[in-house]
Amino acid sequence: MAGSRSSKGARTLSQKYFVCPEIYQRETQRIFDRQWICIGRTSEIEKPGQYFLYESDGRSLIVVRGQDEKLRCLFNVCRHRGTRLCDTEAGQFDHKIQCPYHAWSYKLDGNLAAAPNMADVDGFELADYPLHEAPCAIWEGFIFINHAQSPPPFQEVYKPISNRFKDWALADLVSAQRITYEVAANWKVIFQNYSECYHCPFVHPQLSPLSSYTSSSNDFEAGPFLGGPMILNEEHQSLSMDGKRCAAVLPGVGQKDARRVYFYTLFPSLFISPHPDYVMTHRIERLGIDQTRITCDLLFHPDAIKEPNFDPGPAIEFWDMTNRQDWKICEQTHRGITSDGYQPGPYSNLESVLVAFDENYLTVMNGQLNSE
Amino acid sequence: MAGSRSSKGARTLSQKYFVCPEIYQRETQRIFDRQWICIGRTSEIEKPGQYFLYESDGRSLIVVRGQDEKLRCLFNVCRHRGTRLCDTEAGQFDHKIQCPYHAWSYKLDGNLAAAPNMADVDGFELADYPLHEAPCAIWEGFIFINHAQSPPPFQEVYKPISNRFKDWALADLVSAQRITYEVAANWKVIFQNYSECYHCPFVHPQLSPLSSYTSSSNDFEAGPFLGGPMILNEEHQSLSMDGKRCAAVLPGVGQKDARRVYFYTLFPSLFISPHPDYVMTHRIERLGIDQTRITCDLLFHPDAIKEPNFDPGPAIEFWDMTNRQDWKICEQTHRGITSDGYQPGPYSNLESVLVAFDENYLTVMNGQLNSE
Amino acid sequence: MAGSRSSKGARTLSQKYFVCPEIYQRETQRIFDRQWICIGRTSEIEKPGQYFLYESDGRSLIVVRGQDEKLRCLFNVCRHRGTRLCDTEAGQFDHKIQCPYHAWSYKLDGNLAAAPNMADVDGFELADYPLHEAPCAIWEGFIFINHAQSPPPFQEVYKPISNRFKDWALADLVSAQRITYEVAANWKVIFQNYSECYHCPFVHPQLSPLSSYTSSSNDFEAGPFLGGPMILNEEHQSLSMDGKRCAAVLPGVGQKDARRVYFYTLFPSLFISPHPDYVMTHRIERLGIDQTRITCDLLFHPDAIKEPNFDPGPAIEFWDMTNRQDWKICEQTHRGITSDGYQPGPYSNLESVLVAFDENYLTVMNGQLNSE
Repeated sequence: MAGSRSSKGARTLSQKYFVCPEIYQRETQRIFDRQWICIGRTSEIEKPGQYFLYESDGRSLIVVRGQDEKLRCLFNVCRHRGTRLCDTEAGQFDHKIQCPYHAWSYKLDGNLAAAPNMADVDGFELADYPLHEAPCAIWEGFIFINHAQSPPPFQEVYKPISNRFKDWALADLVSAQRITYEVAANWKVIFQNYSECYHCPFVHPQLSPLSSYTSSSNDFEAGPFLGGPMILNEEHQSLSMDGKRCAAVLPGVGQKDARRVYFYTLFPSLFISPHPDYVMTHRIERLGIDQTRITCDLLFHPDAIKEPNFDPGPAIEFWDMTNRQDWKICEQTHRGITSDGYQPGPYSNLESVLVAFDENYLTVMNGQLNSE
Repeated sequence: MAGSRSSKGARTLSQKYFVCPEIYQRETQRIFDRQWICIGRTSEIEKPGQYFLYESDGRSLIVVRGQDEKLRCLFNVCRHRGTRLCDTEAGQFDHKIQCPYHAWSYKLDGNLAAAPNMADVDGFELADYPLHEAPCAIWEGFIFINHAQSPPPFQEVYKPISNRFKDWALADLVSAQRITYEVAANWKVIFQNYSECYHCPFVHPQLSPLSSYTSSSNDFEAGPFLGGPMILNEEHQSLSMDGKRCAAVLPGVGQKDARRVYFYTLFPSLFISPHPDYVMTHRIERLGIDQTRITCDLLFHPDAIKEPNFDPGPAIEFWDMTNRQDWKICEQTHRGITSDGYQPGPYSNLESVLVAFDENYLTVMNGQLNSE
Repeated sequence: MAGSRSSKGARTLSQKYFVCPEIYQRETQRIFDRQWICIGRTSEIEKPGQYFLYESDGRSLIVVRGQDEKLRCLFNVCRHRGTRLCDTEAGQFDHKIQCPYHAWSYKLDGNLAAAPNMADVDGFELADYPLHEAPCAIWEGFIFINHAQSPPPFQEVYKPISNRFKDWALADLVSAQRITYEVAANWKVIFQNYSECYHCPFVHPQLSPLSSYTSSSNDFEAGPFLGGPMILNEEHQSLSMDGKRCAAVLPGVGQKDARRVYFYTLFPSLFISPHPDYVMTHRIERLGIDQTRITCDLLFHPDAIKEPNFDPGPAIEFWDMTNRQDWKICEQTHRGITSDGYQPGPYSNLESVLVAFDENYLTVMNGQLNSE
């Protein structure tokens, strides 16, 4: 199957994409301020008033579930003197969000409910000072945010992949473990590393026996969504320390997929990796030109988690080990790419998805914009 | 009294004044390199040869009392190879300041007294190499420095407020306690916080019972000097943990002022807050665009300090607690102002002094200069 | 002898040479990317496969001895995806350098020996992807590197000083002790400090009794190589804690030199200081505009080191103490030069070598380039 892929003679990206401040700013404008960015799971804020803070690029947002059960992304900035309303990473509001400085109070939908000592200011109306809000979208249990002035409809952008995960009932799954990593590498190095298994025999000695890198193929080969399956070796059931499943095959997963693990990258902030018994997700956050935060969840069926003998340990341990192996080689690669003497090198045919990633990235960075 | 004040429909400063490096540099040129800046108290260097170092914006100055009792601000840079002459924060010179590198020696008035091995250099004259000196001024026991080439006369600039503190005999008072704070907020946020008591009920639960925020008024309402009194609630004598005075009412303070606490801000580096029994001062140093050092003194009458049972503890504890409450909310406000989503908000009428501060600040930043 | 030297009325360098990023970059272009830079001793990599990493200015190089015994400086960047090949500071390769990511393998001469999964890529040839290499030169046991596209021949550049050290048989000497220092001062401050003994009576009270600063003279007085001898006081044999030698006078050293210590600076990266019984070397690395790394070796004759009672301690202790005295005053000088109030000062006649250093430096920085 590997033989069907081709790198088409392409070479790796030039160094400027990993070192230039101007490129970094262009990424902000073209990608991170314009595209739908995954910021978490809806299950993190299930009850009205529950919230978490989302911080990025000098922004702070309160992601909160309203009394109307709706999720909103409210800017964490009081409309009076600009005070950050909330400093605690996650929690529960009691019907209102109150500024600690002068006690301006906002409803959970962002509207200003009360502002002491403002009644005698000419022309002051509570209705004029709701918290600013950013558009958000929900898909398969993920929350996405968009900072564009007129964002493209989420459903349209995600159409190619929107039904891909229905067999795994992704929206219903629950995280058995979340691990957050900070990696000293550019976010693109992380994407590129996840997009090939050429490195598996050398970097992941424990993965190779479970599924051969030569078994991989791709069902998304161009555009923002990329990836495909690897086939489990006959004697193994899933990816875990002992090659056994940590739970039953997920209810909707058919016979073919019970022998497969899929690895998808969703540009520019999400990896989704369905296994027979669980789905692994990586949320990718660009923290700086050479710093990336990765939040990895292992999502299991709620029924499986309720089982008295449920033990996700072998899957968690396997992926924590494998992730760390990846982050280490990503850091070493970032250091090389950003040092003197680097020049674009030739991709192998096993790296065809990286070629597709680079093509999509360069199109987004250099292509015409609708609004331009 | 609050009713007489008006915010005149003004809004808070725009974000650039808290984030732009160009604004920061303009502040250096327009404010910190041109205006009189408070750098300490004369009582810190009472004897000839006593000194302290004043460091700011890449400058190091030796503030020293000469044999002639005069205070001078000498640049801490040897005229030979540029070596920093003195590395110890404060101390006592023994008649001369000697460079540790090649032993060039300066008198306490900055004149070069000796330079070994320089006699045979053609044209070398000791008289040509005094330490550089910056103009300084003394007022009410405070030392001020000015970095302008031709600074405006101190007496002229300070005329509006120069006699305001004679009842408290400020020059004679002695610090019973100095506490230094470093706050992660722009210096203007510190000034603005000190200029209103609208926040007192929410931020200072221990202050509100002693003096109501509605009792405040202003006797300086425009220009570089701003502020006015708050009236102590009937059952209280001063601001302290128990609302009692820590010393007798200061000798020159009359009946009316024995029931008042005044809060004055002196742009751009000093707060003076007379209480019936002591005067609190805050010296404000801009350390960076988002970092401010604040040196707080509680000045008592020397006779009070000599009393066997003198205990300034209740005042010190009260203000340390209250200061820390302020710095915390200032930091939270700075973080909000400098994040995405901030836009200027409406001032209440209780914040009329902030409007005046902003007006004075913008005039200094944008107005014409005499020398331009 | 001091009387014959003259500062010619020169003054110290202006501040920009110690603070401006543009000057720093110009130094990179004119000096550190163009001139021969000392990076270590050949004795550090004696056997085939032995290597150390040389890191500077965003570069990483593998300095390695090949199977053919030849030393090479190979860029530590895989030609495939740019991964840093080697992360360990020094060690021994086993015939090849293998990338940990996808197992591309290079011979010790830099040629690509194997690249898995690349055979089916159209037009891919191993021969097209050797590791990049930088020119290097060997002299007196030192390894030099050059980053220019067409570097000037080492032998030509070093001709004036190439035979100066033959009496000490410098190439044969072995380090008895290496100490590395990081100093918060510009590299030029370090050179300038080493170029005069005017400071010795004040900074080095333990050195002055061994050799008077008035005994110094210069046999190199212009150009990139500067310096000369100091004469040992009659009752002392060498520079050490007790003024005694730690070993016999070196075999080739004559009667005159047995009473002398020489101090030479080799622009822009090396000091060589022959003593009767040992040679001290300082390798100077510019780490930043205000940061310098200094690697100091005390080189003794291999026969001396083999002596059962050999004890270099008194020399090591003496120079570690003296070096630290120097770095401290260099840091204090750097802080002064880079602060407000610094302006160029007059050199004494004892500082004629600093005048020569500045002249050579300015010529290199401002002069015409062959390739321009």
